[in-house]
Amino acid sequence: MIKHIIWKKKSLRVLDQRFLPRRTAYVDCRTAEAVARAIKDMVLRGAPLIGCSAAYGMALAARQGSRAALAKAARLLVQSRPTAVNLAHAVDAMLRASEGVPPGRLAVALARAAEAYFRADLSANRQMGRLGARLLRKGSRVITHCNAGALATSGIGTALGVIREAFRQGRIAHVYADETRPYLQGSRLTLWELMEEGIPCTLITDNMAAHLMKVSRIDAVIVGSDRIAANGDVCNKIGTYGLAISARHHGVPFYAVAPVSTIDPDMADGSRIPIEERSVREVVEIAGIPIAPKGAAARHFAFDVTPASLVTAIVTERGVAKPPFKPGIRKLLA
Amino acid sequence: MIKHIIWKKKSLRVLDQRFLPRRTAYVDCRTAEAVARAIKDMVLRGAPLIGCSAAYGMALAARQGSRAALAKAARLLVQSRPTAVNLAHAVDAMLRASEGVPPGRLAVALARAAEAYFRADLSANRQMGRLGARLLRKGSRVITHCNAGALATSGIGTALGVIREAFRQGRIAHVYADETRPYLQGSRLTLWELMEEGIPCTLITDNMAAHLMKVSRIDAVIVGSDRIAANGDVCNKIGTYGLAISARHHGVPFYAVAPVSTIDPDMADGSRIPIEERSVREVVEIAGIPIAPKGAAARHFAFDVTPASLVTAIVTERGVAKPPFKPGIRKLLA
Repeated sequence: MIKHIIWKKKSLRVLDQRFLPRRTAYVDCRTAEAVARAIKDMVLRGAPLIGCSAAYGMALAARQGSRAALAKAARLLVQSRPTAVNLAHAVDAMLRASEGVPPGRLAVALARAAEAYFRADLSANRQMGRLGARLLRKGSRVITHCNAGALATSGIGTALGVIREAFRQGRIAHVYADETRPYLQGSRLTLWELMEEGIPCTLITDNMAAHLMKVSRIDAVIVGSDRIAANGDVCNKIGTYGLAISARHHGVPFYAVAPVSTIDPDMADGSRIPIEERSVREVVEIAGIPIAPKGAAARHFAFDVTPASLVTAIVTERGVAKPPFKPGIRKLLA
Repeated sequence: MIKHIIWKKKSLRVLDQRFLPRRTAYVDCRTAEAVARAIKDMVLRGAPLIGCSAAYGMALAARQGSRAALAKAARLLVQSRPTAVNLAHAVDAMLRASEGVPPGRLAVALARAAEAYFRADLSANRQMGRLGARLLRKGSRVITHCNAGALATSGIGTALGVIREAFRQGRIAHVYADETRPYLQGSRLTLWELMEEGIPCTLITDNMAAHLMKVSRIDAVIVGSDRIAANGDVCNKIGTYGLAISARHHGVPFYAVAPVSTIDPDMADGSRIPIEERSVREVVEIAGIPIAPKGAAARHFAFDVTPASLVTAIVTERGVAKPPFKPGIRKLLA
């Protein structure tokens, strides 16, 4: 299994995903501030992994032995990226774990709680894999977007967790991975994970997916999520929405796979989920090389929202929700 | 106006579009073989420009003063790229111009015919600009894909020709350009052209178009074409099909702009248009830098086909065809 976040008690060592697969480098975070910076700068990414690392960030803050330090770290971590709700979910879990704990025991209690949070994510991944694999028939050919794999979670993945388990059961014949501009999580991370596992896979540019659905048999689109609204609207990496529209146009089922911590019950629908806009440098440059004229204006939406009406099923560790999503999601959260 | 193909009588000087906008370099083609290689290697690209350069390639072959040399050049040029039908159209026009011409006069006759072909394309561009601009209301915000501009034609453009003329008339407020992976014609070429003209423009990655249609007012999608079937199916740069599906999903009109030389009356529908697959290096590398793991498999479809059912109108220099396209296109060709 990929060692991409390693808890060292006095620090959190995180694999720098920005340089993968060309270079394997680690960043040591000794404070919650350093963890928040790593999240903001996308040293690590993926909603569930961001949640796990925020939990460890809180554990690092707890070493100061004061609730004020914890409160400050909580604010900082939650603000590090706006879209993934797992961040707030993890921080809240750590604040709850600190309740009633004497200051001198905070460090031990929060380290334990962070490890438990990490293990719970791992076990949720495994369960999603089992539940999601059942949705695929033998020999399926699927398209995935971005990286919802081991590198995005505690270690197996959401969408890729389903693909891993389905492959083990003979249900996956081939995976097409969107390269996922501008950050190239698909070509850099997903291809790498799939090749390591020996799962047959092919890279395509994002704009080839619709053509592929037309000229080739595609049985499903499987993606992760950064936030799911109470009505089943799915926020995920930019490009997911267009992919879902194409899937619907071709009658291809569209599955979102995410732990219940990704569901935001306070968000009635996806229209008010904050969509992060990141630096346009990632659009006008690739690997530091300019690909547009000097001074070109660009937009860099990092996420989009796929309306529930385009979603076939949402796979969580507690079960699979199908339309109508509102009651189904309420049941999962109960 | 951009000097991107310059007829020097003994050679054709072509701007090497592979290095734009970073570097302006020219390639001198002294033979039809050299022109065919420049087309194949995408030194120049864009269906109408490929047609014009093939005409000049025939004029270079005519300097040998034999019909055999012309026939050989014709075969070579037509085979250089499979999808754009303008190539065959131009070569056929040159072969017709050679009929009944004594060998000693072939060079002069074909040089003249090639120049006439180039001028006809330029005048067709102007006419398409005028006809297409009428489809847009004042202050329109449009999305374009790939580069269907001056660099893709004799000098004004098909889709960008419409945008240029519409901007002049106050009908264009903003242009969003898809970067158009893998070859990045949008970020490298379209942005450059639009910025040179002072037309307000913003670069997006291909996978942002659907989100943009949802969160922002988009009045039209305007693209070029490499081949149009008799029923109105539009073959164009990879990604056009997905963009058209998203446009339909959002009720945004989808316009294809191309000279009648792009219409292939022998192709009943788009299903048998040959879709070129190019080197996967353009997918797994950017500017020579690997962006995927070593040994990664990839596909590189260079084009796709948008069915007539997703097309709002086809703009040619002879008029605008609307559904039902079959009779409309027959009339344009009559």
